[in-house]
Amino acid sequence: MKPTPKLFAELTVDLGERSYPIVIGKHLLEQAEFAHHIPGMRVAIVTNTIVAPLYLERLIHMLNAAGKQCIPIVLPDGEEEKNVDNLMHVLDVLLQNKCDRKTTLLALGGGVIGDLTGFAAATYMRGVPFVQIPTTLLAQVDSSVGGKTAINRPLGKNMVGAFYQPQSVIADTSTLMSLPARELSAGLAEVIKHGAIIDAEFFIWIENNIVQLMAREDHALAYVIKRSCEIKSEVVRLDERETGLRAILNFGHTFGHAIEAGLGYGEWLHGEAVGCGMVMAADLSVRMGYLDEVDRDRLVALIKRAGLPVIAPDLGNDRWLELMEVDKKNEGGKIKFILLKPLGQAVITQAPADLLEATLSSCVRPRHDA
Amino acid sequence: MKPTPKLFAELTVDLGERSYPIVIGKHLLEQAEFAHHIPGMRVAIVTNTIVAPLYLERLIHMLNAAGKQCIPIVLPDGEEEKNVDNLMHVLDVLLQNKCDRKTTLLALGGGVIGDLTGFAAATYMRGVPFVQIPTTLLAQVDSSVGGKTAINRPLGKNMVGAFYQPQSVIADTSTLMSLPARELSAGLAEVIKHGAIIDAEFFIWIENNIVQLMAREDHALAYVIKRSCEIKSEVVRLDERETGLRAILNFGHTFGHAIEAGLGYGEWLHGEAVGCGMVMAADLSVRMGYLDEVDRDRLVALIKRAGLPVIAPDLGNDRWLELMEVDKKNEGGKIKFILLKPLGQAVITQAPADLLEATLSSCVRPRHDA
Repeated sequence: MKPTPKLFAELTVDLGERSYPIVIGKHLLEQAEFAHHIPGMRVAIVTNTIVAPLYLERLIHMLNAAGKQCIPIVLPDGEEEKNVDNLMHVLDVLLQNKCDRKTTLLALGGGVIGDLTGFAAATYMRGVPFVQIPTTLLAQVDSSVGGKTAINRPLGKNMVGAFYQPQSVIADTSTLMSLPARELSAGLAEVIKHGAIIDAEFFIWIENNIVQLMAREDHALAYVIKRSCEIKSEVVRLDERETGLRAILNFGHTFGHAIEAGLGYGEWLHGEAVGCGMVMAADLSVRMGYLDEVDRDRLVALIKRAGLPVIAPDLGNDRWLELMEVDKKNEGGKIKFILLKPLGQAVITQAPADLLEATLSSCVRPRHDA
Repeated sequence: MKPTPKLFAELTVDLGERSYPIVIGKHLLEQAEFAHHIPGMRVAIVTNTIVAPLYLERLIHMLNAAGKQCIPIVLPDGEEEKNVDNLMHVLDVLLQNKCDRKTTLLALGGGVIGDLTGFAAATYMRGVPFVQIPTTLLAQVDSSVGGKTAINRPLGKNMVGAFYQPQSVIADTSTLMSLPARELSAGLAEVIKHGAIIDAEFFIWIENNIVQLMAREDHALAYVIKRSCEIKSEVVRLDERETGLRAILNFGHTFGHAIEAGLGYGEWLHGEAVGCGMVMAADLSVRMGYLDEVDRDRLVALIKRAGLPVIAPDLGNDRWLELMEVDKKNEGGKIKFILLKPLGQAVITQAPADLLEATLSSCVRPRHDA
C-alpha cells in the first residue's frame, strides 16, 4: 500500500517571469498529482548511484503514470564527480536521445546532482527546463533557492557555472529519513546560517528545536525548510545576480571554502566546512567588536549540537590566506568577510591582517593534535 | 607612423539593460580612444595562432596605454578547436591568474574564438564582462549580434552554450584585408541571407555591389556590416531567446548544418555550408510554390558570384534526413524549414517528404561526380 502523501507548505520564489514554486511535503514522489510541477513530455532524470536505488524507480513509475517518457542518467556519487566529464556525459546522453529544447532536466539528489544538472540544463541547446527534487536537507534548504549552478575545477570549487532558475522544486521530507547523520548535520549548518545572518527569532526557534531536528521530526524539518527557503528567496529576489546584498549568504563560506579546498574536496562535507567557517567568522566578529562573546558562544554551541565540527583544520596561515583570496566573492584580490553585527544581522567588510591571523590561530587545531 | 583611424558607423543593439554598442571603422585597434569600449582594468584576450601574430601585439599595446593589464590566451586555429578542452583551458588560465568577476574576456578572432570566449565569459564565476573584436566578415555580420555562445560536441555543433550578450563589439574593417578569400565569401553568405529573408532592397544593393564587396572596398564592407547588424539586432530584439521569429535567421542553416556535420566540421566553412544551404532552401521554396524560379535563380547567381558553393555534397538521403533531425531548432523530431515567400520574406514551415527528397536529388552532386 502506498503511504499517504502530506503537503506541509507551498511557497513561491518571486523572481518576476522566472518565479517558481517550492512544494514541501512527505511521500510526494509517488504521487502522480505532483507531476504537473514537471513540464514537458520527456524528462531526463539525473541522479547518482546512492539515490537511484532508493527513489528512481518510483519516480519513473509516477512520471510514466502521468504520461511522461523518462531518460535516467545515473552518475557516480561524490563532490569530486561534480566535474566537466560528468557534465559532458549528461549532455551527450541528451544528444544521443535527440532531446530537444522542450526536454526537462530533473535533478534527483543532493547539491552535487542539483548543481551539475542545473548547469547542464542551462547549457544544453542554450537552456532547457529544469526541475529539482532535492533529497538532502542541504539541497532542500540551500540549492532550492538561488539559481546557482556549477561544476568544480581543480583550481576552484563552483568556479564555472551559470545563474539558472528551475521551473519548480519538490522537497520531500521522507527522503531525509535515509540520510546519513553527517549529511543531516551539514544541512542544519545552512539552516543555522539563515537565522544567524537575518532572523534572530528563527535562530532562537532552532535553538529550542534542535533535538526534534536531530531526531528528524517531520514538522520541525518542514518548518526549517520553509523558513530557510523564505529567507533565502527574499535575499535572492533583492539581488539575483549577486552584486551586493546576496553575499551575506556566504557567511561562513570564505573560511569554509578554504577548508574544503585545503583538505581536498570531499574530505569534509560542504555543510561541515560552513559550520566550522561560521565559528571562525563569529570569532572574527568578536575581535572586530561587532558581536558579544555570549552570542558567539550560543552560535558555537548550536553548531556543535547540530553535530558539526567547531575546530578548524590546520592548513598553515599562508595556505589559508592563499585559499581565501581566490574565493570568487572577492574583487581585486581583497578578502571580504561576512560578519555578524550582532547575531541576527550581517555586514560585509574587510578585516585587519592581525585580527584575521588571531582568528586563524585560535580556531585552528594545533599542529601537534594532527 | 600609425594609420589614421576612421569611424564609419556606430549602432546600438537595443536589449533593454543588456543593450550594447557596435562600433564599425578602420584601424580602430591601435587607437587608445576606443579602449573606453572595453570595461575593467584586467583584460584576458582570447585569440588563435593565426590572428595573434597579426593583431595581438598592437591590441595589448593599446590596452596597456589605456592603463589596462592584459592576459593573452592563444588557442590553436580551427572549428574543431571549439571544444570543451579549449574552453576549460581558458577558464583554468583565468583561475591561475586569480581573475575575479570584474575581469573582462575579450574575443579577438572569428566565430570560433567569439563563440568559445563568449561561453567562457558566460560561465566563469557564472558571468564576467565580455567584449568582441571580430576579425572575420562572418563574425562581424553574424556573431556580433545575438548573444549566442557555444562549443561543439562530437554529436552536434553548437549544442552546448549560453545566451550571453557582450558589453561592446568593435568591428575593424582593416582586419578583413588579410582574410583568406574563402572566409570573405563565407561572411558574404550571411550578408546575402539577411537581404533574402527580410529586406529585398538590401538584397538588390548587394547584387549591385558584389564586385566592390569582393574587392574589399572599405565603404561597401562597412555598409553591409552595419545593415546586417541592424537587421539581425531587430530580429533578436523581438525574440532574444529564440522562441519564434528569430528562427528565420536560420535560413539555409538546416541544410547547412547537415552539410557541416555530414562532411565533418571544418571540411566546409560554416558560411560555405550556409551558402549552399540557401540554394537548397530556395529550391524547396520553389517546389512549395512560395518563390518564383526567376528569384531563385537570382539568389543562386548572387551566391555563386560571392564565391560560394551552389552544389551540395552527396551524403545519401537517409544520412541527410538523420542529420537534419538533430538540428536544435526542431522540436519533437519534426523538421522545420525556413523558406522564402517570396524573396525578401521568410516563413517557418514543415515540408512534405516527396518535395524534400526532390530538393535533395536536384541540389546534391551526383555520386559519379564525387
